[in-house]
Amino acid sequence: MRRVVLTAALFAAATAFAQQPPAAPAKARSMQEILDASAPADWRDLDPANTLYLELDSGRVVIELAPHAAPEHVANIRALAKGRYWDGLSINRAQDNFVVQWGDPAEEEAKRKPLGEAKARLPAEFTFGAKGAPFDRLPDVDGWAPEVGFSAGFPAARDPRRGIAWLAHCYGAVGAGRDVAPDSSNGSELYVVIGQSPRQLDRNITVVGRVVHGIERLSVLPRGTGPLGFYEKAEQRVPIRSIRLGSELPAGERLPLQALRTDTALFAELVESRRNRRDAWYQTPAGHIDLCNVPLPVREKPTKQ
Amino acid sequence: MRRVVLTAALFAAATAFAQQPPAAPAKARSMQEILDASAPADWRDLDPANTLYLELDSGRVVIELAPHAAPEHVANIRALAKGRYWDGLSINRAQDNFVVQWGDPAEEEAKRKPLGEAKARLPAEFTFGAKGAPFDRLPDVDGWAPEVGFSAGFPAARDPRRGIAWLAHCYGAVGAGRDVAPDSSNGSELYVVIGQSPRQLDRNITVVGRVVHGIERLSVLPRGTGPLGFYEKAEQRVPIRSIRLGSELPAGERLPLQALRTDTALFAELVESRRNRRDAWYQTPAGHIDLCNVPLPVREKPTKQ
Repeated sequence: MRRVVLTAALFAAATAFAQQPPAAPAKARSMQEILDASAPADWRDLDPANTLYLELDSGRVVIELAPHAAPEHVANIRALAKGRYWDGLSINRAQDNFVVQWGDPAEEEAKRKPLGEAKARLPAEFTFGAKGAPFDRLPDVDGWAPEVGFSAGFPAARDPRRGIAWLAHCYGAVGAGRDVAPDSSNGSELYVVIGQSPRQLDRNITVVGRVVHGIERLSVLPRGTGPLGFYEKAEQRVPIRSIRLGSELPAGERLPLQALRTDTALFAELVESRRNRRDAWYQTPAGHIDLCNVPLPVREKPTKQ
Repeated sequence: MRRVVLTAALFAAATAFAQQPPAAPAKARSMQEILDASAPADWRDLDPANTLYLELDSGRVVIELAPHAAPEHVANIRALAKGRYWDGLSINRAQDNFVVQWGDPAEEEAKRKPLGEAKARLPAEFTFGAKGAPFDRLPDVDGWAPEVGFSAGFPAARDPRRGIAWLAHCYGAVGAGRDVAPDSSNGSELYVVIGQSPRQLDRNITVVGRVVHGIERLSVLPRGTGPLGFYEKAEQRVPIRSIRLGSELPAGERLPLQALRTDTALFAELVESRRNRRDAWYQTPAGHIDLCNVPLPVREKPTKQ
């Protein structure tokens, strides 16, 4: 008799707190059953030109970039990767229940690694125009935004009144660190959320993508003991072997990753399977799901389908 | 120029998404300024009889138990600790963005460590009566429950219509693993939330307390590669040196921990300082805070005040 908490690492209403969750459909499929029944068209290939491979001694972390949300930052990050900017730099910060962050640890401007072809300063890209931007809306209420959902597969929020949308700080979100000035980021300092979604950062900093593979290589890093979780000693920093665009890697060194599309009936069914859990273990289906609890499955493309 | 994401590890609207966050008060204090101005009466001493010390090779993790929420489970956990039940057992599971879990790794009932004076089975304590139970309500909307707040200092939710309350699965929540039967837990298998709040577990499993010190010793553990994040090999498990009640330790070996009270004007000011961040870095205060983003400060009692 092994007591377990049933899995929710891949988790998946309309109103705040459904007092009576809807009755179970005659045949509610589990997330695994839904994924097993997926068709090739339910998945999309990641674009190698917008995929970053962060190579650590412990292995690989893969990030999908979001050019539709932060075009200038993504262009700069691509220039930095092409210029081998991060190779030999390090992860310098790991703050529990918040973020891991990497870049140039040098404090003094004069000692910092040159940015090469990349720009030193970019406009803030905290939000983007909602008009024409993809947005697959969740019906669930959210305290941080009028609407939440997925934009090109990334957790996102939208304010129709203002005509703006933005990527949300869920677990795995990748953003561009900045100073006090809103336009002080250039993408050379990147952070990844490794804790409870810090949604207060939404609309305050530029989100550039999300981790789609290997986040556990970041989330287990020893926490820094300095202010804000910075490592206090140089030898505590975690070396970065390289960061490369997938399009720069030989095809055989890329992972053939696919993400589940968020604009399909299959995805809607998957979300519902997590909003109201119907397996025997659950006594009380929640009748709600938070944006940051929705699973966004990623797989390696099957060799035959 | 070091670009950072400003700290939110200790994070702090009444309605969903305030379109216009309230204007800043003339002198909005930061969380640190508020804590620095706190009086001794703003803090409460942890009760050593309801405090667990989990000793690992890497150091100490301290848990505050919640007897008002789960009296039978807490009584059983106290009996297990007094009987040295966990000493020599191990952490057997670490699932990324979900939980770390410990107990007896033996699969077969016959090989499992005897529970001693503790009971083998307890009633489910998924909720408790709201009447008379402490509850310091947050005004912020929540999708998982009609009301959220803090009950005796623990993140909690409440349904006035049904007259029930329950502890919420926020980062650091400690719960009692169970099998499919609702009354199959006894507190010998405990898990800690180390990722995005899995609130779908609320009202489905018994929450017994929360980690108040040293959670980073759990959150950095290597993730298990078996199903549900269980370690696949015995040597991967993390040994537990001991688990003791504070009241069983010599006074000199206890930490003199104090938690910030949640029923004070000072705490309300602290929450507001996190709901609407007023420092120079933030461009757009959120006008909202999620239950699981509210900081619950814990300190060692000052030797003089």
